[in-house]
Amino acid sequence: MTSHECSRKLHPGIQLQDMGSFHIGGSHIQIKDKPIKEIDVNPNSGRRIIVDPNGTYHVGQIYVQYYIPQNVLSRYPLLLWHGGGMTGKTYETTPDGRPGWLNYFVRCGWKTYLSDAVERGRSGWCPAAQMYEEPPTLFNHTYIFQRFRLGRSFQEKTLFENSRFPIHAFEEYSMEFVPRWTSTSDQTVDAYCKLLERLGPSVIVAHSQGATLAFEVMEKKPELVKALVAVEPYAAGTPERISQIRHIPILWIFGDYTDEVPAWKEAKETATAYCEEFCRHNGDGQVLELDRIGIRGNSHMMMMEYNNFEIADLIEDWLIDHRLTRSL
Amino acid sequence: MTSHECSRKLHPGIQLQDMGSFHIGGSHIQIKDKPIKEIDVNPNSGRRIIVDPNGTYHVGQIYVQYYIPQNVLSRYPLLLWHGGGMTGKTYETTPDGRPGWLNYFVRCGWKTYLSDAVERGRSGWCPAAQMYEEPPTLFNHTYIFQRFRLGRSFQEKTLFENSRFPIHAFEEYSMEFVPRWTSTSDQTVDAYCKLLERLGPSVIVAHSQGATLAFEVMEKKPELVKALVAVEPYAAGTPERISQIRHIPILWIFGDYTDEVPAWKEAKETATAYCEEFCRHNGDGQVLELDRIGIRGNSHMMMMEYNNFEIADLIEDWLIDHRLTRSL
Repeated sequence: MTSHECSRKLHPGIQLQDMGSFHIGGSHIQIKDKPIKEIDVNPNSGRRIIVDPNGTYHVGQIYVQYYIPQNVLSRYPLLLWHGGGMTGKTYETTPDGRPGWLNYFVRCGWKTYLSDAVERGRSGWCPAAQMYEEPPTLFNHTYIFQRFRLGRSFQEKTLFENSRFPIHAFEEYSMEFVPRWTSTSDQTVDAYCKLLERLGPSVIVAHSQGATLAFEVMEKKPELVKALVAVEPYAAGTPERISQIRHIPILWIFGDYTDEVPAWKEAKETATAYCEEFCRHNGDGQVLELDRIGIRGNSHMMMMEYNNFEIADLIEDWLIDHRLTRSL
Repeated sequence: MTSHECSRKLHPGIQLQDMGSFHIGGSHIQIKDKPIKEIDVNPNSGRRIIVDPNGTYHVGQIYVQYYIPQNVLSRYPLLLWHGGGMTGKTYETTPDGRPGWLNYFVRCGWKTYLSDAVERGRSGWCPAAQMYEEPPTLFNHTYIFQRFRLGRSFQEKTLFENSRFPIHAFEEYSMEFVPRWTSTSDQTVDAYCKLLERLGPSVIVAHSQGATLAFEVMEKKPELVKALVAVEPYAAGTPERISQIRHIPILWIFGDYTDEVPAWKEAKETATAYCEEFCRHNGDGQVLELDRIGIRGNSHMMMMEYNNFEIADLIEDWLIDHRLTRSL
C-alpha cells in the first residue's frame, strides 16, 4: 500500500476557503543591564548597527498556520502538534516528497491548525531571556535514526525488517530537526491552552512530546478537547486526574519495533497501564499497536512513512466512529 | 483604500493544485570532542536521556513552502524572501489578521515559494556548530518600532502621520521576529542559489536583508533570475558586476519617512545611485518611492500595512508589463 492508496476518494487538488497564520500565547519580558552590541547586519555591506539587547520582548508564543477547506466536514477544528526537536513541518510533505497528514486532513474536510511549539521554528525565542541560558539540543543523525527506530545502527544504515521509512530521503528528514530547550514545556502547554480558548472545542492529533503535553493540556482545559489521538507519547497523563478527563476519547498509536528501544517499550507500557486505568474510570480509550493489526514496519515517524495515509485513515475512521466528522 | 480593495478580481477562496514544503541547501558537518549531556526531555515525566552532541548534522539548509494554484497564470515561479530577524511569516496573514502577499500572489495565479533563511524559523540551526558561537540578536520592541519606521518614539507610541500600520496588532507583529545571526548570509545565498537551480528561472520578491542577498544571488545565478522586486534593501549589488545582470529587470520600492531614519535615507540613496548606474548599462531599473506617487504612510513593513494589496498591485502590474505573468 503506498501513501496514495487510502480508503478516501480525495479530491486531487486542495480547495480552501482561507489559509493563514498567527501567533498566540506568551507574555512580555523586560531585559535589563545587558551590554550594548554593535553588529554588522550585512557583513558584505560594511555597515554596522548598534543593538541594545535591553528592553521589551514577547516570549512564549507559538506560531499557528491554518487551512480552512472549502467544504468543511468536521465538527471541530483539528490541531496538529509535533514532537520534540521538530516543528509543524512534521505533518507537511514527507521527506521523499509525498503529501503528509496536513494535506490529508485538509482534503478530508478538516479545519486544520498546524503549529510550532514554543521556541521551535517560526515561534521564535529570545536569546537575552533567562530561560534559554542552558544551551538547547539538536538531535544528531545517529539519534534520529536509532532513537526513532528506523534501524539498529546508524553506522550500518540497515533499516529494521519491513521498514516503511523512505530512507533515500534521510537527508531531508535530518534537515527537519531544530534545536530544543527542555525548559519550555510549561509555556507550550499554556500557549496550547490559549489556542483552544481561541478556537473552542477541538480534536488534537499529537506526536511524541506534543502528545505528552496534550495530556497536560486536557487536564487544564478538559471542556475544550473533544478527542485526543496520541501518536507515541513518551509519557501519559496523571492517573489521579483521570476522572476530570474521562469524557474525552483517547486513541494511542504505536508503531513497530518498540521492543528494540527500551524507551519506547516503556512508553507503550506506560500508555497501556494508563489506558487500562482510564477505561476502569469508564473512559473511552484504546491503545492501537500497529504491528498487532498486521501493519508492520512503522517507526516513531509514521506520519512520514510510505503507508502514512493508511494510518491517517485509521485515525479518521476512529474520529468518524466518534461522530467528530463525516466521511468524505 | 483598504487591503481588500485591490484592482484584481480575486476569487474569494484559494484553489490549489498542490501545496507542500521541503528543505534545500547546506551540507554535513561533524562535531567532535564535546561532552556528553544528560537531559530531561519531559521535565514532568522525570525521565532523563543521554544525548551525545558529537556526530553528524546537516547545517545551512533553508525551509521552503510552496503553493501551486489551480490556474497558473505566471510564466515563472515567484520566490518570496523575508528580511533580517524575520521568517516567511512576513508574507502570510498580516498582524491584524488580513491576508498578506502570499495569499495575494497565489490568488493571482503565481506558483509561490515562501522560505525561511538559514537558521531562521523552520530552517533550523545547530547549537554545536562553530558558526553559531556568537550569540544571535533578537530585535526588541523599541527597535522594531523605530528602526522600521512606525514612528519616532516607541516610548510615546506615536505613529508617523498618515501611518498605514495596524498598530493595535503591534503585539502580534512583535511575535513574528526571531533571533538572527550575522554569520549566515553566505549560506543563505548558497541555499537560494540551490533553490533557483531546482526551480529554474524565477521571479524574486525580497524584503530588506532578503533583497540585499538577492543581489548577490543574481550575480551568482544571472541566468536563473527573471526579475527582482527589491523592497527596501539595505544595500545594493556590486557596481562592477552590473554588466552581468543588466538583462534582469529590477524594481525597487521604498515607503514613506525614509528621511526620518538615517539608515533608510542612506539605503534609498544607495539604491538610487546603483539604479542610475544600472540604467546607464542599459539595465531596466526603477526606484519607486511610494510617497512620490501619492501613496503616503508606508513603513519598512509595507506588506503588512492597510494598503498592502495596493502595493502588491503595483508589483504585479510591473510584472505584467514585463510579460512575466498574465493579468487575472
